[in-house]
Amino acid sequence: MEQRIPVGILGATGTVGQRFIQLLEHHPWFEVAWVAASDRSSGKTYAEACKWKLNTAMPEKVARLMVSAASPESAPKLVFASVDAAIAKEMEPQFAAAGKIVITNSSAFRMHEQVPLIIPEVNADHLKMVEQQEWRRSGGCIVTNGNCSAIGLVTALAPLHEEFGLEKVFVVTMQAISGAGYPGVASLDILGNVVPYIAKEEEKMEEEAKKMLGRMNGKGVLPADFAISAQCNRVAVEDGHTESVSVKLAKKASADEIIAAWNEFRGQTASLALPSAPQQVVFYDAAPDRPQPRLDVNRGNGMTASVGRLRPCNLLDWKFTVLSHNVIRGAAGAALLNAELMKAKGYLD
Amino acid sequence: MEQRIPVGILGATGTVGQRFIQLLEHHPWFEVAWVAASDRSSGKTYAEACKWKLNTAMPEKVARLMVSAASPESAPKLVFASVDAAIAKEMEPQFAAAGKIVITNSSAFRMHEQVPLIIPEVNADHLKMVEQQEWRRSGGCIVTNGNCSAIGLVTALAPLHEEFGLEKVFVVTMQAISGAGYPGVASLDILGNVVPYIAKEEEKMEEEAKKMLGRMNGKGVLPADFAISAQCNRVAVEDGHTESVSVKLAKKASADEIIAAWNEFRGQTASLALPSAPQQVVFYDAAPDRPQPRLDVNRGNGMTASVGRLRPCNLLDWKFTVLSHNVIRGAAGAALLNAELMKAKGYLD
Amino acid sequence: MEQRIPVGILGATGTVGQRFIQLLEHHPWFEVAWVAASDRSSGKTYAEACKWKLNTAMPEKVARLMVSAASPESAPKLVFASVDAAIAKEMEPQFAAAGKIVITNSSAFRMHEQVPLIIPEVNADHLKMVEQQEWRRSGGCIVTNGNCSAIGLVTALAPLHEEFGLEKVFVVTMQAISGAGYPGVASLDILGNVVPYIAKEEEKMEEEAKKMLGRMNGKGVLPADFAISAQCNRVAVEDGHTESVSVKLAKKASADEIIAAWNEFRGQTASLALPSAPQQVVFYDAAPDRPQPRLDVNRGNGMTASVGRLRPCNLLDWKFTVLSHNVIRGAAGAALLNAELMKAKGYLD
Amino acid sequence: MEQRIPVGILGATGTVGQRFIQLLEHHPWFEVAWVAASDRSSGKTYAEACKWKLNTAMPEKVARLMVSAASPESAPKLVFASVDAAIAKEMEPQFAAAGKIVITNSSAFRMHEQVPLIIPEVNADHLKMVEQQEWRRSGGCIVTNGNCSAIGLVTALAPLHEEFGLEKVFVVTMQAISGAGYPGVASLDILGNVVPYIAKEEEKMEEEAKKMLGRMNGKGVLPADFAISAQCNRVAVEDGHTESVSVKLAKKASADEIIAAWNEFRGQTASLALPSAPQQVVFYDAAPDRPQPRLDVNRGNGMTASVGRLRPCNLLDWKFTVLSHNVIRGAAGAALLNAELMKAKGYLD
Repeated sequence: MEQRIPVGILGATGTVGQRFIQLLEHHPWFEVAWVAASDRSSGKTYAEACKWKLNTAMPEKVARLMVSAASPESAPKLVFASVDAAIAKEMEPQFAAAGKIVITNSSAFRMHEQVPLIIPEVNADHLKMVEQQEWRRSGGCIVTNGNCSAIGLVTALAPLHEEFGLEKVFVVTMQAISGAGYPGVASLDILGNVVPYIAKEEEKMEEEAKKMLGRMNGKGVLPADFAISAQCNRVAVEDGHTESVSVKLAKKASADEIIAAWNEFRGQTASLALPSAPQQVVFYDAAPDRPQPRLDVNRGNGMTASVGRLRPCNLLDWKFTVLSHNVIRGAAGAALLNAELMKAKGYLD
Repeated sequence: MEQRIPVGILGATGTVGQRFIQLLEHHPWFEVAWVAASDRSSGKTYAEACKWKLNTAMPEKVARLMVSAASPESAPKLVFASVDAAIAKEMEPQFAAAGKIVITNSSAFRMHEQVPLIIPEVNADHLKMVEQQEWRRSGGCIVTNGNCSAIGLVTALAPLHEEFGLEKVFVVTMQAISGAGYPGVASLDILGNVVPYIAKEEEKMEEEAKKMLGRMNGKGVLPADFAISAQCNRVAVEDGHTESVSVKLAKKASADEIIAAWNEFRGQTASLALPSAPQQVVFYDAAPDRPQPRLDVNRGNGMTASVGRLRPCNLLDWKFTVLSHNVIRGAAGAALLNAELMKAKGYLD
Repeated sequence: MEQRIPVGILGATGTVGQRFIQLLEHHPWFEVAWVAASDRSSGKTYAEACKWKLNTAMPEKVARLMVSAASPESAPKLVFASVDAAIAKEMEPQFAAAGKIVITNSSAFRMHEQVPLIIPEVNADHLKMVEQQEWRRSGGCIVTNGNCSAIGLVTALAPLHEEFGLEKVFVVTMQAISGAGYPGVASLDILGNVVPYIAKEEEKMEEEAKKMLGRMNGKGVLPADFAISAQCNRVAVEDGHTESVSVKLAKKASADEIIAAWNEFRGQTASLALPSAPQQVVFYDAAPDRPQPRLDVNRGNGMTASVGRLRPCNLLDWKFTVLSHNVIRGAAGAALLNAELMKAKGYLD
Repeated sequence: MEQRIPVGILGATGTVGQRFIQLLEHHPWFEVAWVAASDRSSGKTYAEACKWKLNTAMPEKVARLMVSAASPESAPKLVFASVDAAIAKEMEPQFAAAGKIVITNSSAFRMHEQVPLIIPEVNADHLKMVEQQEWRRSGGCIVTNGNCSAIGLVTALAPLHEEFGLEKVFVVTMQAISGAGYPGVASLDILGNVVPYIAKEEEKMEEEAKKMLGRMNGKGVLPADFAISAQCNRVAVEDGHTESVSVKLAKKASADEIIAAWNEFRGQTASLALPSAPQQVVFYDAAPDRPQPRLDVNRGNGMTASVGRLRPCNLLDWKFTVLSHNVIRGAAGAALLNAELMKAKGYLD
């Protein structure tokens, strides 16, 4: 293996931070060289600071890293971030202004008009929005990925929007507990239960979906103009957001045409050979009772959106179920793929 | 307590059959006098034949009853039923033809044009459909209640339909495992999982909702003419179907008007003092994260539909969450309330 | 109903505090008149301060109470407490010194040599230990109940110890999440999982069991001298601690004799007619696969210990399974029964 | 890859059968060439006959295999089996008599005095028991592995028995639902519950542990002579049996000595380089709250027994927790390792 590019992780001890570290362990391009977390962790090794909650071992090299303070001085050029929105709002511009390329899963800047909100297969072209950012003067920038519930939906909608044009989208989610981080959802709240509310989630899904499926218009993005209504629920699932979706299309399409659009979708990264891109971006499962989190969440190493149960809808045109891994495709894997896109596009040279 | 009316239970050892027996234990009007189940149970006492799965003790009187063969000869006049559709299709007409009043939770005759599909508060007037039934000549009849997922929905929709007129209804369900009976859903299929499919459930919800909210038209029912699209999912909840709903109304209504319609709804049984009718048919909970199965399923002894999260919908007018107890309001309690309605209306005299 | 005795609740918004309020709602002797919680709650009504997590409605009278500061000035004579051990250690003596009768579920003083650790049916006679307490001079005292996992075990062991003499006890617990309070156990830690560790739990079980089954010796208690080894696990159960137990007895006993000892056990409160005492203190279930939390936890309104699966042990004499409700018999109900005992014994006159 | 040895699977559509197929997909020595299941599956392809329940895709080559009748005519020389005991009792001798090497997870012949019950690292030397089998005349034999709950225990006990000598063993299990196959445990029985009973499980654990840890004595095995008492519970975990264990040793040992015995244990296969043998047979985790199924079940690709929480026991010497994967180390992986042992020992030449 050639020399790998050193990367940093902001929020390294959290649920998504741990996934960054897991996904980067054997990465061909990047290597974790710097981890930062809240002040109470600094001065400790990562192994001491982190309550590791994944079912693979903590990578030994990272275990021995000292946790740095969350400031850009010592950070490498490329920094992955996943921190609370309020913290991100302050901290991410500091890193960008200091010349760092901030690839963030935090929500603070997703809807900022100069910040791209990227799913590489869907809207890699939005990346050029970064050119407007004042932070570019120092070589830095901020690039975001969507909310964990929005990414799975948009990945499944993109082929339909491209081929047939979306007019209306109705979506109800059944979201996994890992989406709330750790400790996150109290067990007394979710064991044998459904919680029909996740703060700000419906708003994020609705606005982010339109931005991600929007078109570049000069230097900015013109949001897609379909109507969308989201309802978000929490269920007792560890990983994987399941979504019941109904859509109205501008151009009528048969079931076969829709399924073909999904299975054949390669998107804007088809020629780029990004290491974390799944072979199949969207997989349509013809079985009557799929997708299911327990069986399908890890398809494509957690990067494939699984779709099933396509059938006519009495109100709109078609209804179907989408499943995607909320911590991989919906968070850490999403950011990683964004970083790979940036490297492929020359931003890291 | 006066002499109570003897009643029989067809399918007495099943999940719903056990609930009939639990709910009838201290009932002021009815007393379980006859239990029938499949052939392999006959000749045993109920205690021997039944794998009791409720968290209250099996009533001692019922425990000692001998399980009868499932034929009408020995059955009392009033028979509650909950058996597989295929069995119900054969057996329920035999009981009705033999002069029995069959109050059934089975699905076989729900959509039969001479059979009423009743939620007493919503459409007690449909009961007179029984007059058309040929079985009435011998004094028998068949009266049904809806599918467990349809009843909660329709109970919440009824006040809106009455006050404002329904035009469109979207519903996505998250249904409890008890809805599938026992042994029903395998634990490997649902622990930490969502299954996005329940056979025939979406079709039942869609067609039953329209029949229940329809209007009497001569001797029959004219189904309500709103459009409805249902998507049904199974989740790891013991009791209580949660439903994310969106509606379009003919007459525009404010949130306050809608909430008032729910909280003030008394329906067609307001003056009847039916023992199992809840004080509040629909309860609107203003908390941001309710209703939830674990906390709200037993409201009104499991007979109240809980509603929450009323908010505007970008596609239709309003969206909200409904919860109701699938085995009580959605099955055994539903049938029991139907029987109480029939007694109040003089059918048992 | 006569005038009821006003009582206070320290830690009123916690998991056990809420249970106190639920259990006291229709209590014949006591009435909640004062609620206290942490500083951030004071100045609010109970309804505002408390995230109510029980599946029955918050009692309206209590909902309207203002939350008091946690100091004895305004408190009634009888105060129920359930707070963190560190807080209890400071606060409970203040209340006792101010003349309050503190009936506490907190662990701070359970092993204090002047403080009784009571299960009324088992060791009501230990109550006279309070006479030694210096707080008695002002009319106050502290009375404790055991850890939630110890109470179920000791309730099942008491009839055996009394009849046959315990020599050795081996116990492995599978404990419910509600035992950790709210938010308590993170859902990511327990959904589909077992956690083989609960801090200090094994030590508490071992030492408390011996004190509770000990004998009065002068003014103090001589701990019972059997050997006991406990292993404690957390499982994904809402309420109800299940325990696999094995025992060696001084006097050999047959299965029938042991079952009779359990079923006939009435204990030291047989003649007292305490309102919360269950008709059956220990219930032996002869079914091969019981007791189970889902089916049996509420037996005797959550105050009965359920026992099953008595069979010979290859190492000691007998093995069996015990289940008891950790928040009722194991916490709030335990303290309530202690208060009832004190009233019956004249301590509240 | 060289030509691989064709193998057959008896009971190929079951929970363990599916695991055989998953584990064999990329196996360096063996290749699935024949699958058999119950009569209703024969004439179908494996893909048609099998309700695949694993979260990796069904291997394509196996998907296209026709399901054979369960008779030895068409079977390859080496056959893996996992079928109900009653079926195994008839069928496995037929295969062995027809010259097949039957490596079985079924329980029928585990305690047969001519049949070895093998964990290769623990008792590879027991394999020579097959020489007594009359089926050897035709070249066939039966080799078994232990019950899923016994294997994890024995793997953890073996280093202690070897180094210090076991005298007494207490064990309480918390077993995963996958141990009961599919559909197996009904969701209504286990969601949020503990079931303190698994038919015949305690007996199997007790007798199999002694046989596996026994010594060859002439042509047979002399069971180890420690005393053992097992209590078995089912919990809501998908994969991984957790066991609370307490032991008395003949030779006193310190915690460090015990931990060293575990971590350094290589067993009887150290020199054989079996492909499915884990690098670490037993892994001691020093964290205070481990092992846990969710985090540790897949250690060593599901072949390592994880141990933790070693601490003194008030009754015996030491107590600790063991976790092992019940379907891999406890069933399919166990049989596969047995087959690898047989190949390494020349039985397949």
